[in-house]
Amino acid sequence: MNTKKPSPYLMNAWYVAALSTEVPADTLFPRKLLDTSVLIYRKQDGTAVAMQDRCPHRFVPLHMGKLKDDQVTCPYHALRFDCEGKCTHNPHGNGHIPAAAKVRTFPLVEKYGFLWIWMGDQPADLSALADYSPLSDGHPNGVGYTYMPRDCYYELITDNVMDLSHVDHLHGEIITTRGQLSPRPPKVTDTANSVTARWEWSQTPALLIFNSFLPDPQAEARHWVEITWRAPATVQLSIGAIQGPGNLDLKDCVGQYDLHTSTPETEGSTHYFFATRRNHIVEDAEYNAAKIKGMHDAFVEEDGIVLDAVHVEMGTTDLLGLDPVLLPSDVAPVKVRRLLKKLREKEISA
Amino acid sequence: MNTKKPSPYLMNAWYVAALSTEVPADTLFPRKLLDTSVLIYRKQDGTAVAMQDRCPHRFVPLHMGKLKDDQVTCPYHALRFDCEGKCTHNPHGNGHIPAAAKVRTFPLVEKYGFLWIWMGDQPADLSALADYSPLSDGHPNGVGYTYMPRDCYYELITDNVMDLSHVDHLHGEIITTRGQLSPRPPKVTDTANSVTARWEWSQTPALLIFNSFLPDPQAEARHWVEITWRAPATVQLSIGAIQGPGNLDLKDCVGQYDLHTSTPETEGSTHYFFATRRNHIVEDAEYNAAKIKGMHDAFVEEDGIVLDAVHVEMGTTDLLGLDPVLLPSDVAPVKVRRLLKKLREKEISA
Amino acid sequence: MNTKKPSPYLMNAWYVAALSTEVPADTLFPRKLLDTSVLIYRKQDGTAVAMQDRCPHRFVPLHMGKLKDDQVTCPYHALRFDCEGKCTHNPHGNGHIPAAAKVRTFPLVEKYGFLWIWMGDQPADLSALADYSPLSDGHPNGVGYTYMPRDCYYELITDNVMDLSHVDHLHGEIITTRGQLSPRPPKVTDTANSVTARWEWSQTPALLIFNSFLPDPQAEARHWVEITWRAPATVQLSIGAIQGPGNLDLKDCVGQYDLHTSTPETEGSTHYFFATRRNHIVEDAEYNAAKIKGMHDAFVEEDGIVLDAVHVEMGTTDLLGLDPVLLPSDVAPVKVRRLLKKLREKEISA
Ligand code: FES
Ligand code: FES
Ligand code: FES
Repeated sequence: MNTKKPSPYLMNAWYVAALSTEVPADTLFPRKLLDTSVLIYRKQDGTAVAMQDRCPHRFVPLHMGKLKDDQVTCPYHALRFDCEGKCTHNPHGNGHIPAAAKVRTFPLVEKYGFLWIWMGDQPADLSALADYSPLSDGHPNGVGYTYMPRDCYYELITDNVMDLSHVDHLHGEIITTRGQLSPRPPKVTDTANSVTARWEWSQTPALLIFNSFLPDPQAEARHWVEITWRAPATVQLSIGAIQGPGNLDLKDCVGQYDLHTSTPETEGSTHYFFATRRNHIVEDAEYNAAKIKGMHDAFVEEDGIVLDAVHVEMGTTDLLGLDPVLLPSDVAPVKVRRLLKKLREKEISA
Repeated sequence: MNTKKPSPYLMNAWYVAALSTEVPADTLFPRKLLDTSVLIYRKQDGTAVAMQDRCPHRFVPLHMGKLKDDQVTCPYHALRFDCEGKCTHNPHGNGHIPAAAKVRTFPLVEKYGFLWIWMGDQPADLSALADYSPLSDGHPNGVGYTYMPRDCYYELITDNVMDLSHVDHLHGEIITTRGQLSPRPPKVTDTANSVTARWEWSQTPALLIFNSFLPDPQAEARHWVEITWRAPATVQLSIGAIQGPGNLDLKDCVGQYDLHTSTPETEGSTHYFFATRRNHIVEDAEYNAAKIKGMHDAFVEEDGIVLDAVHVEMGTTDLLGLDPVLLPSDVAPVKVRRLLKKLREKEISA
Repeated sequence: MNTKKPSPYLMNAWYVAALSTEVPADTLFPRKLLDTSVLIYRKQDGTAVAMQDRCPHRFVPLHMGKLKDDQVTCPYHALRFDCEGKCTHNPHGNGHIPAAAKVRTFPLVEKYGFLWIWMGDQPADLSALADYSPLSDGHPNGVGYTYMPRDCYYELITDNVMDLSHVDHLHGEIITTRGQLSPRPPKVTDTANSVTARWEWSQTPALLIFNSFLPDPQAEARHWVEITWRAPATVQLSIGAIQGPGNLDLKDCVGQYDLHTSTPETEGSTHYFFATRRNHIVEDAEYNAAKIKGMHDAFVEEDGIVLDAVHVEMGTTDLLGLDPVLLPSDVAPVKVRRLLKKLREKEISA
């Protein structure tokens, strides 16, 4: 829809537009992002580019056209555009190209297995894209990626990841902390555009995703999980377990390094992306496939249906406006909601 | 949706939330009523209770949770609520229960085979629930109940029952009055919150639902039907036929005692409930099942499709605002529309 | 929906309501036109009539009722209406017919294989219906008709037909002009309520729909196409090819005479009608069937999916308000948009 009201989203920021693997060569890939139709494709050298998925002539979605020599031809009257959005061919009349015949392009960066897009009016700020290189560094069988289209507002997904106190209640045996996590309020810290929460605890046996990789699977182990949200909607989560001496980090522990990131499609739907790299049996392709499938299914079938129901029941995207009861475990997600709102207000008034 | 405008419904009144049989033991039963998500369940002693179907923490529908020991546990972070809506357990942090952690409950009364709910802010007024004990008194094979979800505004259903002049035209042979009812304007009386209409006529043969229980099935019989609407949306209908001397009532006639009651789900959908008790072959289970199925099918396939089409064609819930042509047979339904509107306006201004 | 805002459509004008063949005898034919539910049926003498498809009593769509003796009986309470919308029978009370018991009728004219309706408040102006008699004159196997319900605003269809520069790009081999049409801006002329565009060119071989009927199928031929839009949404298109001397008209050329006409159902859906008469092998029924099927399929599968996508992407019906890039080939469709807007504004202010 062509809405005149200001976007509800933080615009000058990096969002994930797609997994790298979602956009093969020779393909016009359409996706609605932040209420805008976007076209993504790869040039012959492999570089991915993004532009508005509509012809400036009569507004045909360009992904219905043809890709050739890094250029897109509109299916309706065959205006042709290069990957900078410039019209390079007009088969009509004397072939003159009107100055206005331009398609808006968007900065697109491929990093860490994702295509990141910048849709705001300010110049794209590469330094605003955090370092998630642990995802790309290491054996290819030690990392998995997945994409989940969801029918809820994206902030509900951020809330979900920023408050892990739900894991013992919503999820099954496989990641239960045996009641150890809920009673512990996390240690929460923040910066101008990030919020971090960290929990540490011991449990017996260890988290079932880790215990078979520990010296004594049935014995107690020390655990930690640390999550860092960065504006607008990316959460990096690291988690691990250890028996005996050592630090609670991924160097010493059996653990994994995850990325949860969501991009609003509209105010009622979200593109949810996830990646996970583990530091154990990193060459095992079969284990890798089963692990990403298991996590995908849990997010969709356990978190997903609850968040969709919340979205419908709330009838608004403004959680705090509904005066929810707040628990100690809400410190981190509420900080995120408030900080994101502040950043967006600052952007609008700028 | 979370609407700020005042509800269009009369709030301080009893509506049917469900048939008694719709809510078995050990079940969290969700239903949207008057634009609000409601959860109904039975305590271990069988008493049914109702509360808002949303957790005050992050607005998860509570029916997605678990019922145990008369309490409901939210599936997301496991806050637990008793049947008075009080939070009795918080597994997070030090377990302190925030004062605001309460779920709104609604008075619920089980009577006459229905669960009646009071959703207004005023104290529930038990005296406002009329006596429909003929439904519950008598042989269980002499009464039938059914539930029909409908895609029209609930007042269209009330209109339908309050103006029986349609029976010869919309319905088939089985309940035709052979043209006798339409020409007779009913006798209409009213009170502060009810409207009654009564018709009396003779026809040959009698109504086909009754004639085989009369002395001479092919001969003339005297008939009557009386309907009483009570605010907000319950209509009690009694109908009978007799040959020879006797009063036009259910004591002397072959007849039945029905209840039509509808509860708005939204402004575009309605829960329509129906019950019928007859005073003949009351122990015949097979006849009973066929009778309630026949009436259900007629309401759905004959009245239902017409009312759904009217709802779409009107494009508003305000019939009288569209300046309809009024017929003599409209006296009762129009009185009902006006009285209900007056009661609602009084409630809003109170 | 019952909207209070003024209609977006030109009201005092002829629109096609249906193909003649869509409305057989003894049939109540419903169709929503210009946001209004319309009922069409044929009297016993074959004359087609149109009235609002809603009973003035309780707004039941009259097409759900029964047709007998040129009159319609409402299914709900059996008010009966003649084809002038007058209530002729009321089975209720003393049978008195309320003065307001009238259904609005609409002037309907059957001509050229179509039923044309006038829905405005001004008296229907027969002289405003242009002469399309070439459609009806000639062998019945030389003309084909089709109906296509579309999910886009009707002006997008007018744009499509008024700018033929798309034929080489959107459509396949069968009607390619081999790049000859696009470079030529058409000659455009207009009147107070019409716009005409005409192209002339040569190509080798001729248009494949015509070349096998020319002396030398593989040789060059002279071509022309002329389209005339008349308010509100009817476009007459003639096209032909010739080898050797002769005029570029349907008398001298192998060619066809087409009518494209669309009628808004709502602002998001359109009834698109099409007819084509050719001047060659006019008795060949098999060729005729294949030809109309081929054109129907091209409009639906080639133009249709593009226009539906444009409708969604635009999110508004106001193309010019979105500041499209304009090409030389847009002269005719833009003139049409502007003239139609002017006519509608004049009508509203009158
Ligand atoms: S709409 Fe793209 S070239 Fe015309
Ligand atoms: S949403 Fe119910 S406990 Fe959190
Ligand atoms: S609605 Fe048509 S007669 Fe009553």
